[in-house]
Amino acid sequence: MDRSLAWIPRAEFERVLGEVVDPHRRVLAFSAMCRINTLYMITRAGSGHIGSSFSAADVVSRLVLEELYRPFEADGDVYFSSKGHDAPGLYAAMIGLGLLDEELLHRLRRIDGLPGHPDVGTPGMPFNTGSLGMGISKAKGLVLAHRLAGRSSRVVVMTGDGELQEGQNWEALPSAARYGMGELTVVVDHNRLQSDTFVADVSDLGDLAGKFTAAGWGVLRCDGHDPRQLAEAFARRAAEHPERPAVIIADTVKGGGCATFAATSMAPGEWRYRHHSGAPGPADHDSAYRELLGTADGILRGCGLAPLRPVELTVDLPAKPAAVRLPELYGRLLTEAAHEDRRIVALDGDLVLDTGLIPFRETHPDRFVECGIAEQDMVSMAGGLAAGGLRPFVHSFSCFLHARPNEHIYNNATERRPVVYVGSLAGLLPAAPGHSHQAVRDVSALSGVPGLTILEPSHPAQLAAALDHCRSTPDSVYLRLSSQPVPPELAELPPAPLAVGQGQVLRAGGQAVAFGAGPVVLGQLLGAADLLAERGVTLTVVDLPWHNRVDPVWLGKLLAGVRHVFVVEHQYGNGGQADLLARHLLETGTADGLAFRGIHLTEVPRCGTEAEVLAAHGMDAAHLARLIGADVLDAAPAPTD
Amino acid sequence: MDRSLAWIPRAEFERVLGEVVDPHRRVLAFSAMCRINTLYMITRAGSGHIGSSFSAADVVSRLVLEELYRPFEADGDVYFSSKGHDAPGLYAAMIGLGLLDEELLHRLRRIDGLPGHPDVGTPGMPFNTGSLGMGISKAKGLVLAHRLAGRSSRVVVMTGDGELQEGQNWEALPSAARYGMGELTVVVDHNRLQSDTFVADVSDLGDLAGKFTAAGWGVLRCDGHDPRQLAEAFARRAAEHPERPAVIIADTVKGGGCATFAATSMAPGEWRYRHHSGAPGPADHDSAYRELLGTADGILRGCGLAPLRPVELTVDLPAKPAAVRLPELYGRLLTEAAHEDRRIVALDGDLVLDTGLIPFRETHPDRFVECGIAEQDMVSMAGGLAAGGLRPFVHSFSCFLHARPNEHIYNNATERRPVVYVGSLAGLLPAAPGHSHQAVRDVSALSGVPGLTILEPSHPAQLAAALDHCRSTPDSVYLRLSSQPVPPELAELPPAPLAVGQGQVLRAGGQAVAFGAGPVVLGQLLGAADLLAERGVTLTVVDLPWHNRVDPVWLGKLLAGVRHVFVVEHQYGNGGQADLLARHLLETGTADGLAFRGIHLTEVPRCGTEAEVLAAHGMDAAHLARLIGADVLDAAPAPTD
Repeated sequence: MDRSLAWIPRAEFERVLGEVVDPHRRVLAFSAMCRINTLYMITRAGSGHIGSSFSAADVVSRLVLEELYRPFEADGDVYFSSKGHDAPGLYAAMIGLGLLDEELLHRLRRIDGLPGHPDVGTPGMPFNTGSLGMGISKAKGLVLAHRLAGRSSRVVVMTGDGELQEGQNWEALPSAARYGMGELTVVVDHNRLQSDTFVADVSDLGDLAGKFTAAGWGVLRCDGHDPRQLAEAFARRAAEHPERPAVIIADTVKGGGCATFAATSMAPGEWRYRHHSGAPGPADHDSAYRELLGTADGILRGCGLAPLRPVELTVDLPAKPAAVRLPELYGRLLTEAAHEDRRIVALDGDLVLDTGLIPFRETHPDRFVECGIAEQDMVSMAGGLAAGGLRPFVHSFSCFLHARPNEHIYNNATERRPVVYVGSLAGLLPAAPGHSHQAVRDVSALSGVPGLTILEPSHPAQLAAALDHCRSTPDSVYLRLSSQPVPPELAELPPAPLAVGQGQVLRAGGQAVAFGAGPVVLGQLLGAADLLAERGVTLTVVDLPWHNRVDPVWLGKLLAGVRHVFVVEHQYGNGGQADLLARHLLETGTADGLAFRGIHLTEVPRCGTEAEVLAAHGMDAAHLARLIGADVLDAAPAPTD
Repeated sequence: MDRSLAWIPRAEFERVLGEVVDPHRRVLAFSAMCRINTLYMITRAGSGHIGSSFSAADVVSRLVLEELYRPFEADGDVYFSSKGHDAPGLYAAMIGLGLLDEELLHRLRRIDGLPGHPDVGTPGMPFNTGSLGMGISKAKGLVLAHRLAGRSSRVVVMTGDGELQEGQNWEALPSAARYGMGELTVVVDHNRLQSDTFVADVSDLGDLAGKFTAAGWGVLRCDGHDPRQLAEAFARRAAEHPERPAVIIADTVKGGGCATFAATSMAPGEWRYRHHSGAPGPADHDSAYRELLGTADGILRGCGLAPLRPVELTVDLPAKPAAVRLPELYGRLLTEAAHEDRRIVALDGDLVLDTGLIPFRETHPDRFVECGIAEQDMVSMAGGLAAGGLRPFVHSFSCFLHARPNEHIYNNATERRPVVYVGSLAGLLPAAPGHSHQAVRDVSALSGVPGLTILEPSHPAQLAAALDHCRSTPDSVYLRLSSQPVPPELAELPPAPLAVGQGQVLRAGGQAVAFGAGPVVLGQLLGAADLLAERGVTLTVVDLPWHNRVDPVWLGKLLAGVRHVFVVEHQYGNGGQADLLARHLLETGTADGLAFRGIHLTEVPRCGTEAEVLAAHGMDAAHLARLIGADVLDAAPAPTD
């Protein structure tokens, strides 16, 4: 799909920064230009966080142009975003300043480009963020390190307001006060909207200023889109609180600086902000672009300068194919099941769209609990609901559900009351958001929880059976849901019984047997089987949806007479299926003569498109076929003549 | 060691509850009697939390006698302690009310007795607690479950003040306000002291009332040792905040109600409260007993009643043998190393004694960071210190270090800067505190973190080498430290080189090879080897201190010609050494003909004495010898004649 896009080159940033004399106008011109490039980057990438980038843009511009000493340089003041969602906006600013290669504008969310959330691999980024609520703590560590080195650089951290629902922020405040961290400033991008909807409707922050004050912090507040107010807030921060940490609550508008995306443009009664993530459609893009260009040119005109000279180009943006995706179906099935099963309660961590819960929320509002970005609280609440005889289903992205409340999941498990944890966006893909959002350690981090089975359906019929299992088992379940399209070959599979530790043979009768779980791994394995068939190697493909359970009888029958076994996991291998099968085979004395190979992720996952990242990690069909083919053919007896 | 102890029988509680008419005097008489029984239980058990039980005793007495409707019964108001440390005091109250079997008084921290922290296996306990900061969240879940069932029972949760350092408490508050949870009351046992020292010196809570107010909660405050003030606070809680959650900040004294243990008796300048955990010595016990009996009898006398008739008995309390323990040595070594290595910074989670850090704190105060009970903040701060070029060593109990900051450890790992995590109290033992404190899932939950090696030394010389490794490796390290005595056979081992993935043969030349790590597992394996020798079976015992790394060359040489391999792990097996070795052997095609058995924990660990719990889980030398002996002898060829 061809689209005409435009971006502002570095030379234009140089011109504007050099020629606009008034600092406040310069900030606004710079932020408008950064918004144009943010719009370009996200539209080209096909996804990204426009709302968050735009709401923070004026604060970032004020900071990098006027407030900070040599930002992003080794000896300078430190700035980073804790929320991380505003990475495209931050990249645009750094490119505008000439601190990042301009070519990277075209490589947002591409491999070796700019990751969806900040990563230390990008010059100038001190920390990996995007996993929310860690920034204040990290900044404190850096301040202490600076002090030990005799350095007094300022450290400024940007947080979201939704992000402040994470308890870590509040546990981080007291010691900053105790250490008298005048070096540390937190700016809250207070746009009142989090991922799904209004912060106040999700988990109200209450008296935000009062909370910081009670922890011993200095508090300032200003309009985060007004450079004059921002300048005054930073000046007062320095003057009034020289020896203690301070927060500047910057009142902003999500998508601010551009009516197309501004939350203030939302229709009355609309509860969901539509531009949190994802790329804008053509109409929104074009209207926003015109508007932003107009804003920038208006400022330049007011300064007697020539209008911007954007670079226009035509880009072929891949269309997103319609496809079956499991979370959406899951949400409908859970909603349906809850009509008859009154024990079902759904808890959500501010991801009602991506976890498929919108129908549940609308149909069973009395049994829907929006917990906000507070996974520990959510999981322990589920423990309380289970204690009250209900069957809680706890929802978030896998990456946020398996690790931060890891102790809480175990604690619930020690009470032996069933809780169902449903992690969407599980696995290596999508890889565009980057490693903070790629759940590749969930199986490893949870496989040892006693009484918790890890179950990953790969197709609709299996998902329905999995949900039945979740409702009836005395165990707890971690239901691992890929959000990627279900391959056509899997999408139409008929219902089949689901027995703990047993899998489903998708292709039978091969020389070698390969195990995998979930639509992505199995899609690649089926592709590999096709490629292998061309080389005369036949591959049995087994869908084993259980990550930490295997039925020994079923496995024994399946592997009778088999010489080659492969297990493919798109995540870290420790405690996963290959470990499970290898150990089982060895302990039962059924491994003699078997050639066994587990293929799993071994490094921090890359950010990029699906195809780029599968290939980079050797997880695509072609690579799997090569690996499996080599093993099988090498081991085959030489032809006798 | 014979000791004369005394306890108050249930019949005396009945008499006092029946005959003391004034409710406030009744509360105080009851709490004094509960304190006597708490003293008895903890002294007899050899460990337990006196300070916390005593500070909460008057609040608990007021609650169970006067405030709550049918507490601990299925249809009654719900009370539980979130901090959990005050379990002995709570048990004493329940036994005094006849709600728990009186015989359990003699079985604190014993198997099938009363666990060191609350567990749902004990009648009347709704939740497993002791893993701090989960209580408010759990209570909210229970309130929602009650509402769905049309029930309006009150739920009262006790928290510590140190416990409030955990961020989860603060993320839990807003939704209770949003749901208008008039059913929910939190009582803060505000004794101003946490595990190590004064809360204000660790991580000051700041304006505690202000924080709750800012979150929309009702706030009341009273003297937590004065039944009249408590009565008034509960009355005002109901009258003034009928439709919102409320907190009662009960100002108490740690060890209160008894001058022997009262924090107010601490010598001027003393920074460490000595009665947080552990059992009192004879002199403290006897003085406290006399004092408490005097308090109770004084109240009875004032009511014209006969003095208490305690049951006296002589108990043989096992003496604690002097022994080498690794954490203490570790602390000295780290302190020493930090003289020359200026990169070393130590972070602590309010466990300065048990992590061995007192010398470091005193010697290098500028590089010691007390983080309080806020493990997520601590681990992310370590990330910040590492970003500043330092080498942070992060300390807590293993149980608190591997799970709650699990996402933070991974996030640090993705930044590829070395951080050392030092978990004390690692493993199945000690088992007296109960499963919240038994770190048996740490290996499983961390083995998949990329670039993180898990290293568990078993003896002093190996610990020294391990510390050198931690200082020089580019990897991050989770240093797993057992706090149990090092067996004499290990304690005197000379220094040996430590190479990644390689182990040390402790007994050589056996028919079978057994792998293990740490002083407890290896102590039991050496014991098993002795028992097996009596049966004519020889066992090679290998100390493999690496939980998620193995050197293939070393392993190949070690196992050449070996028929039987055993791997013993006192924790959940997923992702541990047996998985690692099994998979490695199978993938390298070196498993043919090998009999392999991994022995690991399969259930939630029991609470009890060391010997009880090792035996209950089949982890003691005798059980290991039986299992190994059976495998080896069964497989041996029948003697030919």
